[in-house]
Amino acid sequence: MNDIANSKAAVVDKLVIIGAGLIGSSVARAAKQYCAAKSIIIADQNKAVLDEAQALAIADGYFDDAGEAVQDADLVILAVPVGAMASVGEYIAAHLKSGSIVSDVGSVKNSVLLALAPIISDHVHLIPGHPVAGTEKSGPSAGFASLFDGRWCILTPPDGVDAAACSTLKAFWEQLGSTVEVMSAPHHDLVLAITSHVPHLIAYNIVGTANDLETVTRSEVIKYSAGGFRDFTRIAASDPTMWRDVFLNNKEAVLEMLGRFSEDLTALQRAIRWEDGDALFELFSRTREIRRSIIDAGQDENAPDFGRKH
Amino acid sequence: MNDIANSKAAVVDKLVIIGAGLIGSSVARAAKQYCAAKSIIIADQNKAVLDEAQALAIADGYFDDAGEAVQDADLVILAVPVGAMASVGEYIAAHLKSGSIVSDVGSVKNSVLLALAPIISDHVHLIPGHPVAGTEKSGPSAGFASLFDGRWCILTPPDGVDAAACSTLKAFWEQLGSTVEVMSAPHHDLVLAITSHVPHLIAYNIVGTANDLETVTRSEVIKYSAGGFRDFTRIAASDPTMWRDVFLNNKEAVLEMLGRFSEDLTALQRAIRWEDGDALFELFSRTREIRRSIIDAGQDENAPDFGRKH
Repeated sequence: MNDIANSKAAVVDKLVIIGAGLIGSSVARAAKQYCAAKSIIIADQNKAVLDEAQALAIADGYFDDAGEAVQDADLVILAVPVGAMASVGEYIAAHLKSGSIVSDVGSVKNSVLLALAPIISDHVHLIPGHPVAGTEKSGPSAGFASLFDGRWCILTPPDGVDAAACSTLKAFWEQLGSTVEVMSAPHHDLVLAITSHVPHLIAYNIVGTANDLETVTRSEVIKYSAGGFRDFTRIAASDPTMWRDVFLNNKEAVLEMLGRFSEDLTALQRAIRWEDGDALFELFSRTREIRRSIIDAGQDENAPDFGRKH
Repeated sequence: MNDIANSKAAVVDKLVIIGAGLIGSSVARAAKQYCAAKSIIIADQNKAVLDEAQALAIADGYFDDAGEAVQDADLVILAVPVGAMASVGEYIAAHLKSGSIVSDVGSVKNSVLLALAPIISDHVHLIPGHPVAGTEKSGPSAGFASLFDGRWCILTPPDGVDAAACSTLKAFWEQLGSTVEVMSAPHHDLVLAITSHVPHLIAYNIVGTANDLETVTRSEVIKYSAGGFRDFTRIAASDPTMWRDVFLNNKEAVLEMLGRFSEDLTALQRAIRWEDGDALFELFSRTREIRRSIIDAGQDENAPDFGRKH
């Protein structure tokens, strides 16, 4: 869908990305490949990460000081763990140009909005965002330009935000191949609790459970993981800091969805104990449809086993 | 690893596979491609399934009557849902040749052993088996010859089984590319409860939970499924009859592992409620290692996101 992107005009002049991990480095690569910004600056306080990004030549400038980096920026994207948004926001606030846009890529939106709103001055447009894309890998080298292509990006602008700034940010993500949806930050957090946060939590949990067994060896768990378990180990290999911060910052919605999950699981457990085959069959038949819908919507591979090589 | 298989001698003369679904049809294809049997017969009582298998030309003969099919068979493999093993066993028992081997591919082993042992006569070698391989697709067309290549196949021979018959069955699976492990049926059921059965149950469960929400629409669940949820929908699209039978026939081990999973999940829930970031971080760091081990053991792709296209 982005074959013609190279002929498009840049959406912003100066783009500054703070944090050069998987997502930050992918934003830089995508912005470059699809000409979404005239100049792309990366800032990261971790020298090893910054050096790695520089060696990959994915931006036009590299700073270890985010305050210096954001000078004259038109669009600043915070690509740091959710728990670090407030301190980074405070650090850069005084250096932001009037009329610039500040956004982010955090997986939780209401806590980011509440943390940044009092820090970012009124002449800067604060519009939190979340591209729903990623892999289980971390760091600058794990990024790639097509990560956002065909995926959704959710923006959660606060009330009264500047419409032109919102349009610019929307156009930016569209240039990267995403489709943009706007919703309130609390609703975002509820939706992502079920489509992302609780799935990660139960994946981490079952890998932990399997690791701690005394009746089945770790070697057996690994050998026979193709029975289904290995699927869960992928998302359970995601960045620990990022995910710790997600759960600490989306507590209410995660606990609400987790409560429903546990309630349903208890009902299934009871169906197994009482050998209610009809109840099991009914659920197992119903869940096939949602897979079909996800494939039809272009949100997953139709190839068996995610297209894994055999 | 199977480049030289075509030059190998057939392991058995007449192979009969009962059930032409994903696994049965893959056994037929693999046995043909790797020359594991001189002749391959498929039986399926479902006429549409049998016709589909015949149209694919994956065997040398096709029967709707399993009793007729097994005449003179050297190796019979039951590839039907675990709950159907007893009735199929009873149906074919009188037609089995003295000295033949009867095995299966069921995901539960102790209930299959208990169901078949009283039915199969003493002059037939009963050796239950389980190739730990599969996809979320069903039916004859979903099968492929390399499904078992590089995977483990577990045999659970009863006490006092004929050693030569065991060697033959082991050689058969090795010819298909698998590595064979022998263990007791109860231990198999415990290992698979954690590496396969409980993972399937929680995948089915979360897809059900997401489907039943009133605060988040079905359309939102589908759109934002790339946040992690879509991974679970794959195994939750597996065959409902097969999986109903797995849970009904491995009740004790599944309830035991499910109890541990729920206990651990309750501890995680508490860590979120009390904002114990260190406990979350500790678990999330530990689970990365097991992913690494699975990749090192050749049991999953190292490519990000299972190698999905982006």
